Amino acid sequence: MSAQQTAPVTLDDLQRPIRQRLDAVGDALRRAIEADFPLIRDINAHLMQMRGKMFRPTLTLLADEATGGPSARAVEMAAAIELLHLATLVHDDAVDHSVLRRGMPTINSLFSHQVSVIMGDYLYARVMVELTRLGDLEPMRILSRVTTEMTVGEMRQLLAHEPLDYTEEDYDLLIQSKTASLLAGACEVGALDAPPAQRDALKRYGMSLGMAFQIVDDLLDYTEDEATTGKPTGLDLREHKVTLPLIFALPRMSAPAQRSVAQLMRSAEPTAEQVAEVIGAVAEAGGLEYARERALRHAQQAEAALDVLPPTPARDALRAGITYVLDRRR
Amino acid sequence: MSAQQTAPVTLDDLQRPIRQRLDAVGDALRRAIEADFPLIRDINAHLMQMRGKMFRPTLTLLADEATGGPSARAVEMAAAIELLHLATLVHDDAVDHSVLRRGMPTINSLFSHQVSVIMGDYLYARVMVELTRLGDLEPMRILSRVTTEMTVGEMRQLLAHEPLDYTEEDYDLLIQSKTASLLAGACEVGALDAPPAQRDALKRYGMSLGMAFQIVDDLLDYTEDEATTGKPTGLDLREHKVTLPLIFALPRMSAPAQRSVAQLMRSAEPTAEQVAEVIGAVAEAGGLEYARERALRHAQQAEAALDVLPPTPARDALRAGITYVLDRRR
Repeated sequence: MSAQQTAPVTLDDLQRPIRQRLDAVGDALRRAIEADFPLIRDINAHLMQMRGKMFRPTLTLLADEATGGPSARAVEMAAAIELLHLATLVHDDAVDHSVLRRGMPTINSLFSHQVSVIMGDYLYARVMVELTRLGDLEPMRILSRVTTEMTVGEMRQLLAHEPLDYTEEDYDLLIQSKTASLLAGACEVGALDAPPAQRDALKRYGMSLGMAFQIVDDLLDYTEDEATTGKPTGLDLREHKVTLPLIFALPRMSAPAQRSVAQLMRSAEPTAEQVAEVIGAVAEAGGLEYARERALRHAQQAEAALDVLPPTPARDALRAGITYVLDRRR
Repeated sequence: MSAQQTAPVTLDDLQRPIRQRLDAVGDALRRAIEADFPLIRDINAHLMQMRGKMFRPTLTLLADEATGGPSARAVEMAAAIELLHLATLVHDDAVDHSVLRRGMPTINSLFSHQVSVIMGDYLYARVMVELTRLGDLEPMRILSRVTTEMTVGEMRQLLAHEPLDYTEEDYDLLIQSKTASLLAGACEVGALDAPPAQRDALKRYGMSLGMAFQIVDDLLDYTEDEATTGKPTGLDLREHKVTLPLIFALPRMSAPAQRSVAQLMRSAEPTAEQVAEVIGAVAEAGGLEYARERALRHAQQAEAALDVLPPTPARDALRAGITYVLDRRR
């Protein structure tokens, strides 16, 4: 597929055509979370620093421009999308007791677990306020469905008590609800004024891109070291999180290798050696190649979905976004 | 005021004229939280048992009928109000690590803290879905503002680190955001189709009623025993929560009594004797009478707000609601 043949794509490349509008999204975001309550102001300042690369708002703005935009409300919608993303991150970190995110202390570690639960609720409330300001029920309809899916996804993740019984179908359901649904929503709300066929195509693009995004993310845990990703290699394994490479590889491993996996899953704190051994066994049984191949298949579906859009620089940027997702190292 | 002169009012009295519609609210609620995810179904069953006396939906339906109803959507709106209330309770219990609510185990104690954070998010998402189904942005606008206020209120409560510096103004702000705002919202969404003066009157009624409701709640902690309320007398004091009776009484106490209060606030686990001593000192300094008087003043404001409504059985029921709030023992 063409996505593989093009030159490396940085997020900056994707964002160059919409840089100014993305700055406006940042301003809208700051305005949306503003509060006259001192603690909330402190947390907001931290959140704005912790804020990621604005990948989801980028998708919203590009979807908007690929379907007849720029429209004025796309910026507000992109801000609501990022706000919703922030709300889920704050609660995810609280639920997982995570200490770091993107190399910075999480809200729960910097303030408290209680503050992070309430702060997440505050951010959800602000999403509702922002969406109401748009004067249109449609984005609300899309994002309330996405939020429902994401919370059910979180519940799924929490309940994966028997990691070794985890199937590829379970995994697909999980990453669809936890990651892909929001990327699909980000694209769809950017295309609200488009003909139904284009809106549907962008939703499918976002869904497939999201699936590829999460599979690549899970692969990086196997292939990249801490210097590149900011997270130690094999962190998921250390935390007993079973992702696609292991799901595929497990039934194809030797009996001793399977026993090593079971042992790691029983260890409260697996050693670096245990982790390295399982990573080796997964690689040997073809788990990394299989996951890579699945990511590529989703990427192809994302690319095919773009075919119904008219040729525009924004469509090219969305196509380049697929390469970015496949090639990223962190 | 007349509210004091009438016979005791039970919630059942208030709900008799709208009993059938209240059953429909229960059905709408069950439908709204339905999920095909087993754990969520289990939690839902528990929530439906734990569900309170439907006081907030009662207000919505009465406000609807007092302003030209019954309207079809008031039932859906009442369900959304109760759903929002449930979402806040689930997260409040998680944040406070509460073990019991209304004599039943909380979600966090029965399942886990993590499950309760995610479940609260799920309920918030369902509120959004239900409000979207109404096809009108106005209830969303009202409830997103209420939700913002309630989360800021929770933050206020969390930050009351120096209980003895807590002023009556702090207290008013807290109970307004944490309790009264939702009762005001419950009344306002019931009156969406009413002329602005009636809608505004019902909002003010709900706000004043909510202030009285919370002051009475805080008074019960001083005056009623566990057999009546289901909570031990002085639980707030045990948890170092400072409410109106103590705020008023503290500067009016003898120096030794003030020292007893300070000592209780420093005790990780105050004894029953310490609690009884402080309750006695608060009563002696007039704290209970003052709080009672403040509750009555809010009740009078609630009653005055109803004057602009045309005389209907629903208005009578709203007026009886004031007596119910003032007289309740649990």
